[in-house]
This record gives sequence, structure tokens and C-alpha cells, in this order.
Amino acid sequence: MNSANRIPPGVWNAIDYERLASQAMDAGHHAYVAGGCGWDATVAANRAAFAGWAVLPRLLRDVRAGHTRLQLAGMELPHPLLLAPVAYQRLAHPDAEVATARAAQATGSCLVASTLSSCTLETIAAASGPARWFQLYLQPDRAHSLHLLRRAEAAGYRAIVLTLDASIQLASRSALQAGFSLPPDCVAANLRDYAPAPAAPLSAGESRIFQGAMRHAPLWDDLHWLLAHTRLPVWVKGVLHPEDARQLQAAGCAGLIVSNHGGRSLDGAPASLQMLPALRAAVGAGYPVLLDGGVRSGSDAFKALALGADAVLIGRLQVYALAVAGALGVAHMLQLLTEELHACMAQAGCAQLSDITHDTLTPSC
Amino acid sequence: MNSANRIPPGVWNAIDYERLASQAMDAGHHAYVAGGCGWDATVAANRAAFAGWAVLPRLLRDVRAGHTRLQLAGMELPHPLLLAPVAYQRLAHPDAEVATARAAQATGSCLVASTLSSCTLETIAAASGPARWFQLYLQPDRAHSLHLLRRAEAAGYRAIVLTLDASIQLASRSALQAGFSLPPDCVAANLRDYAPAPAAPLSAGESRIFQGAMRHAPLWDDLHWLLAHTRLPVWVKGVLHPEDARQLQAAGCAGLIVSNHGGRSLDGAPASLQMLPALRAAVGAGYPVLLDGGVRSGSDAFKALALGADAVLIGRLQVYALAVAGALGVAHMLQLLTEELHACMAQAGCAQLSDITHDTLTPSC
Amino acid sequence: MNSANRIPPGVWNAIDYERLASQAMDAGHHAYVAGGCGWDATVAANRAAFAGWAVLPRLLRDVRAGHTRLQLAGMELPHPLLLAPVAYQRLAHPDAEVATARAAQATGSCLVASTLSSCTLETIAAASGPARWFQLYLQPDRAHSLHLLRRAEAAGYRAIVLTLDASIQLASRSALQAGFSLPPDCVAANLRDYAPAPAAPLSAGESRIFQGAMRHAPLWDDLHWLLAHTRLPVWVKGVLHPEDARQLQAAGCAGLIVSNHGGRSLDGAPASLQMLPALRAAVGAGYPVLLDGGVRSGSDAFKALALGADAVLIGRLQVYALAVAGALGVAHMLQLLTEELHACMAQAGCAQLSDITHDTLTPSC
Amino acid sequence: MNSANRIPPGVWNAIDYERLASQAMDAGHHAYVAGGCGWDATVAANRAAFAGWAVLPRLLRDVRAGHTRLQLAGMELPHPLLLAPVAYQRLAHPDAEVATARAAQATGSCLVASTLSSCTLETIAAASGPARWFQLYLQPDRAHSLHLLRRAEAAGYRAIVLTLDASIQLASRSALQAGFSLPPDCVAANLRDYAPAPAAPLSAGESRIFQGAMRHAPLWDDLHWLLAHTRLPVWVKGVLHPEDARQLQAAGCAGLIVSNHGGRSLDGAPASLQMLPALRAAVGAGYPVLLDGGVRSGSDAFKALALGADAVLIGRLQVYALAVAGALGVAHMLQLLTEELHACMAQAGCAQLSDITHDTLTPSC
Repeated sequence: MNSANRIPPGVWNAIDYERLASQAMDAGHHAYVAGGCGWDATVAANRAAFAGWAVLPRLLRDVRAGHTRLQLAGMELPHPLLLAPVAYQRLAHPDAEVATARAAQATGSCLVASTLSSCTLETIAAASGPARWFQLYLQPDRAHSLHLLRRAEAAGYRAIVLTLDASIQLASRSALQAGFSLPPDCVAANLRDYAPAPAAPLSAGESRIFQGAMRHAPLWDDLHWLLAHTRLPVWVKGVLHPEDARQLQAAGCAGLIVSNHGGRSLDGAPASLQMLPALRAAVGAGYPVLLDGGVRSGSDAFKALALGADAVLIGRLQVYALAVAGALGVAHMLQLLTEELHACMAQAGCAQLSDITHDTLTPSC
Repeated sequence: MNSANRIPPGVWNAIDYERLASQAMDAGHHAYVAGGCGWDATVAANRAAFAGWAVLPRLLRDVRAGHTRLQLAGMELPHPLLLAPVAYQRLAHPDAEVATARAAQATGSCLVASTLSSCTLETIAAASGPARWFQLYLQPDRAHSLHLLRRAEAAGYRAIVLTLDASIQLASRSALQAGFSLPPDCVAANLRDYAPAPAAPLSAGESRIFQGAMRHAPLWDDLHWLLAHTRLPVWVKGVLHPEDARQLQAAGCAGLIVSNHGGRSLDGAPASLQMLPALRAAVGAGYPVLLDGGVRSGSDAFKALALGADAVLIGRLQVYALAVAGALGVAHMLQLLTEELHACMAQAGCAQLSDITHDTLTPSC
Repeated sequence: MNSANRIPPGVWNAIDYERLASQAMDAGHHAYVAGGCGWDATVAANRAAFAGWAVLPRLLRDVRAGHTRLQLAGMELPHPLLLAPVAYQRLAHPDAEVATARAAQATGSCLVASTLSSCTLETIAAASGPARWFQLYLQPDRAHSLHLLRRAEAAGYRAIVLTLDASIQLASRSALQAGFSLPPDCVAANLRDYAPAPAAPLSAGESRIFQGAMRHAPLWDDLHWLLAHTRLPVWVKGVLHPEDARQLQAAGCAGLIVSNHGGRSLDGAPASLQMLPALRAAVGAGYPVLLDGGVRSGSDAFKALALGADAVLIGRLQVYALAVAGALGVAHMLQLLTEELHACMAQAGCAQLSDITHDTLTPSC
Repeated sequence: MNSANRIPPGVWNAIDYERLASQAMDAGHHAYVAGGCGWDATVAANRAAFAGWAVLPRLLRDVRAGHTRLQLAGMELPHPLLLAPVAYQRLAHPDAEVATARAAQATGSCLVASTLSSCTLETIAAASGPARWFQLYLQPDRAHSLHLLRRAEAAGYRAIVLTLDASIQLASRSALQAGFSLPPDCVAANLRDYAPAPAAPLSAGESRIFQGAMRHAPLWDDLHWLLAHTRLPVWVKGVLHPEDARQLQAAGCAGLIVSNHGGRSLDGAPASLQMLPALRAAVGAGYPVLLDGGVRSGSDAFKALALGADAVLIGRLQVYALAVAGALGVAHMLQLLTEELHACMAQAGCAQLSDITHDTLTPSC
């Protein structure tokens, strides 16, 4: 782990942090972060989906007033790149989420803090700028969920991101093979004071999945409860099916995040980008839709926006940059991604995000 | 060969038995089991066909009462994973089919015993639970076929699986190159008392195939004879063409098994999964259709069910688990597959097998 | 070069001669035979096109009277595998075309002797059975062409195969890199007594192609002349464009051979098999259409017949078998191919060639 | 660097200069020339697009009067292969653009001299034949652009090629990794006397792309100005979008060059060849359309013409041949390409360029 907080040589693009992190990180930690679940088929699909589209350059367009500012849920953001909720950032750097938060503040980026952060949400809030959201895993005990909500509200988080696709998270084969386990200093700081759910041993014939892991999985009723118990807008993360999208929109969610949890939940789920057009079509224009999964460059972000996203979330690159160069690395990575997006927009003749329409793309041969 | 009957380290998924078996088995035996015929094009196609589909996760569904029980031909089964008929299991383990039968009994799985088993069908029946079927190769002499039928009926087998796609089985190139031949202790125990068909040398100009290997190949008349001579339901295994499916259904067969014999009959035959939707369409909803060929995970089973199968048969994984850890290995492999299926169902929002419909899938990019 | 004329170990399929020939032949000779022209893109396409189709097995069909006999242009042949015209067979074996002819005779196969054979057409005729055709390259001097025709007629050849796609034959890169050149003992024996065309140096601005190599390329007028000057049926070899096919049919040709000269004429031409359905559609049912290019197995032959060919020609495998085991090798290769075809037919439920229709195939996934 | 000006062994096709140049050139210089931008995805796409098409041979066509002459913008050219504008040719050879110009003159080829040439446009003009065009980058100061125009007119250039797709040119990763930088003796000779634009530091929040690199990027107004200030025909290079093509045609441009700057501008732009049919359709028949990007053989040129181009430009092969054998190499490369085109045409039955229609191609399987 590198805590020198300087930009090493050889970082020309944001994705260079990926390469450097594989050298900087403990092998097991790296396998855990880089891997998804199973054989990483969905991890690979997330990346491959971007290569399926080419960007069409335009000529003679005036982009001298170009910018990437956007209004998102009442926030004015300088660029459509959010920092995705990523658990246990202490695996990457001793400053953990505090470093990430400082990078978000320095670049004006919106940070989504994870329920499973190594630092408490209050500590993260203190280090971050005003653009901060809180990612929520519903707890088996609703009192704990409510307490988390109140803490997030009190700490100035401006939206709740409810993650719904992670009731089951099978390990990545590469992490298993690397013998990864969470080190003792890596704990879910936010949950330290909540007693775990009472053990409920399975009866004969019961399934470790259906009657085990899914026992406390969130249901529609839980979503309605949440919507009724917070004044914050509630986003849902993990949407891939158009019918779910329609129902979540109808239920009153503030917006959706198209995601397969970075390929960490169901190995064999489709790429986020593959499903994006159908999801945008399902909810119609104007309803907020974000995407994560596979974004490694400004061109990737451009393609996601062209296919219907309002913004994208950056997950693994965030951790890689954190591991390589701490807060400075994360800020640098975001700056590089933003400039890559600017360059792609300028060449496609787009002076603002709303110019990035579907007809800026063509399928790759 | 490993007869230690303990689960070795490194088995996280059912498919790990494949990797471990390649180390545990004699190289020639392994080549024989792993190979199909010819250049294994159909073996590869069987696997690749599953990768062509992605599973769509669903959110907020209540699967706490989830299970995989099914009624199949009058049996109540805990899961839709049958043990495919596999010849000569002594190649894999000294306990041979007895070990497999014990695993079937322990897990409540349906076992399909092969005509070409290393142990007699009576021995297998004694070791197995009530869910047992008998796979039949029609013998050149109908008296022998009838005798086998009566023995199977007497031994409590509850269905006959007539294999029709194996009149010609060319060797696998890899088995040829490994110099595989059946060892002397590996015999077709069921057939020991049946005199072989009299030699019928070919005349000049006759074909070793048409007038040789196909001389005793089953015809429609043989199927009608069989249906008339047993009180057991008769399934047909090896169906790939929709027109055959319709005719077999009309002839009174109890159900079909979509199969290319694990790629062991015609190198260049299509993947079982590729043909499944057309076969389901041919016979309509409600008629039993099973599938084998390429199933290596619970997700694979899920995909087969989504595309029209009522259940799947597990062939090579059965042998691999047997070779690695005997009866315990086979039971463990079935348990892993079942849990993988549960996990896939839970994430796709399916609480029972009938929820696994075509719209749970989307083509992979 | 191996002139031992015995079948070496390791020949289980016809295509094994390909592998063994790469060891048995001089490297340069092998590169010349195996290569096509340029980067062998069309050579590869010929092979790949076969893999694009799967064969659908059928069940319970009676093929006990199965055979592969066919009537082709007045000949009764035991199988639809002709020996393609291949130049300079002395490169492969000292017995050259005489060995090939003996294999043809022994197996009842139809031999197509090349204008560019290392032995004279009379010598080949003496060694071959009655099923022999003569492949003609029109000579710059019509008197020479006429003389070749009369010799072929006198030697009992029963058809003329006019090759039209070889006016330009650029070298294969692999043969160039291997430094191949025709050895002194390899000459076009048929042409020894014909004075070469007078030199015609190019003027400034003239093209080595248009005004050079194409100066004596055959034209429609030459075809009409040929049809008027022989009593033998005239087949045309090298057809890929449907419009050419229609015009050749209308002109009175006996039949067509779909071919790209084994990828030796235009690197980047489409696979023979790719064009076959359109060519069959162009000439209608009943008009003879053969195919060469990429056939390496009985299944390949089956697929060509299913897509519209009446028979196929075997080129490179012929040379490989000749190089490995002389006449015996060629005969053995033909026997293996035939049995492979029988096995494929039997499994597809085809008892005769006319049963091999388009619906025996399905696209590979 | 090889300045021996002799053809080395092993040059059988024009593309052999590519292989030899990788040995002859300084590694960093080679990386700069061979690379595009980013990960060279568009460089690869340019090549791959040609492999997607096969050429259909035709039989018995009379091509003895065949030629590749064409009228292009008032010039009579012997072949449709132009030398693309390539900057800084001193990187490849000490004689730089003078050598290229001599090769153009010797072969009658049209040369397009770059604004960024290592020699002045006047020096190049003196060495070249009458078929010479001048590629223009508009300068930040219109007075400089006007001066360049007047110099080009005075030096007898017959057309202006306005490059519009290079306002942003990110480095190639391979060039970055090779540590490439322009050596001191490599300067833009044409621009030596023009003072650079005054520095304009960015304010806080401004983008290095939108407010930096794009500050002086050409706009429609600049194109109109250019058309009004020169008597020469103006071509536009870098067109990929059909709507741009229509507008440029309407604005009075003489013709278009379909190009992605050899993959050097936007990594992820589509292949030139992929967009060509839509661009031809946009401007209609009869309007001049050229193409560059990926042409490495006469067959490639043939395919571009079949898909709608009137001629093609040769970029990297020009530099490679220059590096390997100076002026002689470039002339030889052009001769090889021309003969490859002749051979492809002859086999496709095309005696002149207008015979190269879309139906000479078929998609590769």
C-alpha cells in the first residue's frame, strides 16, 4: 500500500491507476477489489459493452463555451462523474474514505458514502463537500435502519441510495484463490453499535439461500417504509430489469442507478450498459437514471450518457487511485476522467451534456 | 484414482470437481470421459451455448418460501438435477455406480442407471433411493431387451430412458491420442449373460456404417415394440430435431431428453441448449422435456429451465465428483449445484421453478 | 518424402494425412501445397465456412440399405468424392499422378487429371479406372488447346473441366517465405511439345496484369469455341458469382464447380461454401453443381451436399495422402472420407445422397 | 534509419514495407508513426473493416484494355492512390518530403503536402510533379492562413485539403510508453516565420479542452472564409458523419475525404470504411469522395472504391516505404499497390475503375 500521496510517473489516463494499483496493492486485497463474483463474466461484460459502440466525430462545431455542468437532484455538479459507494476503503489506503471525501470536495464531485465504510458516515461527512449522498443497506432490524437514516440526515447527506442487488454476493474465484479475507482493522464502522440479527439456524430441507441469505432481503414493503421514513430523496441502485424500473419510478423513488454491483452479485448478469437503453425507455425522458459498471474512461462516460444515463458512478477506479496516491490520486483520477470526457465531447461536437444524444454513437463493426 | 471419500480443499463450486478430476484420474480415463467424439466441437458448443444467455436480476421479490421441488413423472424431487446415465463408472472409482447411487439416495436425487454400468442394475437399485430410472440400449436380440426390461421393472426402476442417439459413437481424438482402452475390470455387468449377436461379415461394397454399425440400430418399429412391452413410462434420450420430438410425443413416449450424448455421437451436432427452444415449441407446454449437455453450474440449469426444460441431467460432473471423492463427492457436487441454482433463482426473483420463464434471460452481448 | 507406401500409425481420420504430410514433405513443397495466395485469407475462409453449420441428427430412421452411390454425368460412382485436379504431384511423391490414378481406380473414384500434371495425361489414363476427367487450361495457341482436347478424348477422358479462375495466381506468402520454387524434375509433362507463346514485352504505361498476365486469359468466345470443338461435356471450374453461373449454364456447360481454386487465385475471395446456396439457387435444381475448397472430412462433404452440391472435389488431402503413403494413402484417405460421410449420413437419418437436404443443417451458434 | 535507397529483399507486397520499417526505424519514431491515439482502437478498426468484405471473382471478362486511370478534380491520374498528407517526414528519412515528392513525380501520383512538413511547401513543390495538393491547417491568425494559401497557390498546388478532425490529438499510448518526442531537427518548416498565438492562460474552472485546445478550432465561419479567399478547390478531410458531409457539400467544398486521421484523433471513432457507404449515400453519386485509413493493399483500395470512394490516400505505408528505401521505396510501394489493384480488378472482371461497383463485394462470413 502506497500512502505517499504523490502522483507516480506513467499516469496519462485515468485507467493507468488500474495498472498501477495491481502493483501497489496487496495481492489478496487487489483480487477482492478487481474481482466480481464467480468467474467475473459480468465484470468482463461491463467492459466489453463499451467497446461495442463507436463515437462519431463532428466537424466545425463551436464548443468554446463547452462545459460538463449538470443539475442533479438539486445539486449543481461540475461533471457527471460520481464516486460510487465502495465498502471498506481501508483495504486500499490507511486514510480510507476520508481521503476519498477530500478528493470529492477538492473536485466538487458528488460522493456516495457506503453503509460499509471503514470510517463512520459522520467522519466522512466532515471531510467531504456538500455534494454527498449516503448509500444504505437496509438492516435486519428496522430500528437500526432508521437510526442510520437519521444519522445520515443529521450529517448532511442529501440523498439516500438504497442498494437492492446485494442480498447475495458470492465470492470472486480470484479472491478465493488469493485467499482473501477482510483484515481485522477493516470493519463496518457505521454498524459497530448495532447488535447483529439473532442467529436463525436452518431446519432440515431449508435452503441456505432462500431461507438463509434471503431471510432479511428487502421487499417492496421495506421500500415503502423507507420512503415514508425519510425526508431525503431515495435512489435505488442495482436496477437491470425494465419492469423493476417502472415500478420503482411509480413507487416514488427519486431516480435509478443501473448497476450489476460491478459484477459482484450475479455472475452472468448482463452488462449495465447493455440494459441501459431499455431502462431509459421504460422510465421515459426526464426521470433521473445513473449507471455504474465498467466505466474506465471519459469515452465510456460519454457512451453511457449517449445511451440514456444522466451521470455515471466510478467504483473500481476510485479504489485504484486511492491505493496508488491517496486523496491526491482520487482527485487526479477524476480530473483525468473529466478531461477525457471533455475531449470526447469536443470531438463529437457536444458543448454540453444534453448534446450527447444517441446519434453521437454508431455500433462498432 | 482417489478413493479417500473426503472433500478436498478448493471446492467452492460444483465445477471445481472438473478441475480436480483432471488431476485425480488416470490421463487416458480422463480423456475418455472429458472428450466427446472427433474434435469435441459439440462438447465445446454445449458449453458455449450457455454463455450466450445472461440472467436478469429482479429486485424486492419475496423468495423466503423459495424451493426447487418438482413433480416429475409421478416423483416428488427436491431439485431438477438428475444424474445422467454414464457408462462404466468403475473408470472413475472402485465403488462405481454404487457410490453414485448412494449419493443420489442421500440427496434425494433421481438416478438414471446405464445399461452399460460396471455394476448390475440390481446392485445399483439396492444402493439407491426410490427415484431411479433405467437407461436402456435396445439389444440386437429382442429377448435380451425384454429380459433387461423385466429386470429393471423387478428392481423397482420407475421409468425407462431409451437412448436413441448412440448407434454410432466415434472416438474422441483426445482419447485416441491418450491411447485409451477400456480396462479389463470394466465390463457391462448387465449384459454379461447375453450372448453377443452373431458376426455378420460385410460383403464387398457394403458399408461398415450402413450395413455394419447400423444393422441393429433401433427403428420406429422397435420403439413401438418397447412401448407395448413395458408398463413403465418410456422417455427418449437424444432428441435434437423438432420433427422427431413431435413424432415421439405422438407415439406415446412419456417425455424427451434433449441431448447430443454429451457430444459423444456426432461431432458437429448442435448444442443441446441451442435446439431446446424449438423442441419445446414443437411439443407444446406441459409435455416433459429434460436436457443434458454442458450443464456445469446452477446458472446453467437455470438457463435450461428458462428455455423450456423441466429438469436437467448431470453427466460429466457426476463422474468427476465420483473420481475425486466417491459417493461423498457426488452428493457434495449435487448440493453445490442446487445451492447455485437457489442463488441464481433468488437473484432472478424466482421462488419456484415455474417462475423461471424465458423473460428471466436476455442474450449476452 | 515418404515413398514407403504403408499407412503410418495415427491415421484415424482423413484429415490426419494433413498433419502427417507437414512432417513428411519438404518444407518448401509443403508450404506451396498448403498455402493459397497472399495471406491465405481465402484458405482460412474455406475451412471456417464449414464450421458455421451444424448437422442435425435424426432418430429411428432405417438406413440399413444406405449407400452413397450417384449418377454423375453418365457415370455411376460409389461416392460423391472426386479427386480434384492438382498440378505437379511429383512434388509429393515420385510416383506422382500415377499413384493417384491407381488409388482412384482401386476405390472407383473419379479422377480429374490436371493439364499441369507431372506425368502425361496418357500415362495417367493408363493407370486409372474409367471414371476420369481432364482438367484443361486453355493454351495461348488454340492449336495447342485443340491438340490437348484430342489427346484427352483419345485417352478416354469422359469430360473436360475447364478452369477459369486461374489467369492470375499470386504466390502464397508462406511459400515465398519458405523460398519455394518448382524443382527441375517437376515439369508440365503434357505441354512439353508445345512451343511457349511468343514474348510480348509491355510498352510504357502498360500493366503487367491487364496487358501482361491477362493477355491470354480465356474469354466467352474461347468457351464457345471449346464447346464447339469437343464432343465431351465441358464443366467449368472456378465459379463463385451467381450471374456467371447462369450464363455458363445458358452457354451449354455440362455443370459447374464452385471453387476459389483452393484460395490460390484471389486472396480475399469468399469461401466456396459461402457462395454455394446462391449458386444453386441461380441454376436451379437438377443442374450439376460440384464444390471444392476446404473439404477435410465426411461431415464437410455432407454439409456441401446439404447446401446444394452434387459432389465435392478433394484437393489438398489428396496431395497429403499421396505424400505420406503414395497410392495406398490416397485410397485410404478416400475410404476414410467415405466412411466419415456414411457415419454423418446415418446419424442424420440419410440413407442416400438425395436425403441430404438443406434442413439437415442448422447454423452453429 | 536506412538511407541506402535500395529495395531490400523480402518486399513482395506493398505491406512488406510495414514489417521492414519496424526494423529500420528508431523505436520511438516508429511507435509515433504506427500508433494512433489512446489504445489504437480506431487504428485496429480501420484495418478490420476491410477484412469484413470479400471480393467476388468474375469469369471470362475481357480486361485486356484494363487500366486504372481517372479524372480527379481536373487531373488525369494513372491510379487512384494518393499520397496522404503526413507530418514531419524527416522522422523517417533525411530526404523527408523531397523524397516522397520525387516518388510521386516518378509514378505520376498525386501528392498531398502537409502544413506540418519538415521541408517547406516550396521545396516540396520543386521536387514534385504537377499533381500536388496542399493540406492546410487553419492557423490561429487568419493572416498566417492567408499567407500559407498564397504560398500554396504560388507554388502551383492545385487544391487545398482542409483537415478538420485534428483540433485535438491525444497521444498514442505506445508512443508515450516509448518516450517519443519530436527531435529538434524536426520542425514545421512552413510555419517558421509565423509568430505563435499569444498565450491565453485558463481561468479557474475553465477546461483545458473546451477553453484551451478548442479555442482556435475551425468553425463553419472559417470554412466560408477559406472558400472565399482562394481560387483553388477546397477539399475537407476528416469527415465521418453523413450530416457533416451534406453540409460541406452544400457549402461548396470540392470534395470530401472520409477519414479518422488514421486513428490519431479520437480513439473509438468508427473505421473510415465502415462509414463510407453512408457518406456516399449522403452526398449522392458524382460528388468526389476519397478515403484514408487502413489501406494496406490493392484489395483494400478495391474495396474502398466498391463501397463508394473515388480514390484512396496512402498514409502509413508511405512513411514506411520512405523509411526503408527513400524515394525509391515510396515509388516501389506505389507500384506494388497499383499492381495489386490491377490483379484484384482483373479477377473481379473490372477493366476500369467505374466497373468496381458495390456488387463486386460480398460480406465475409
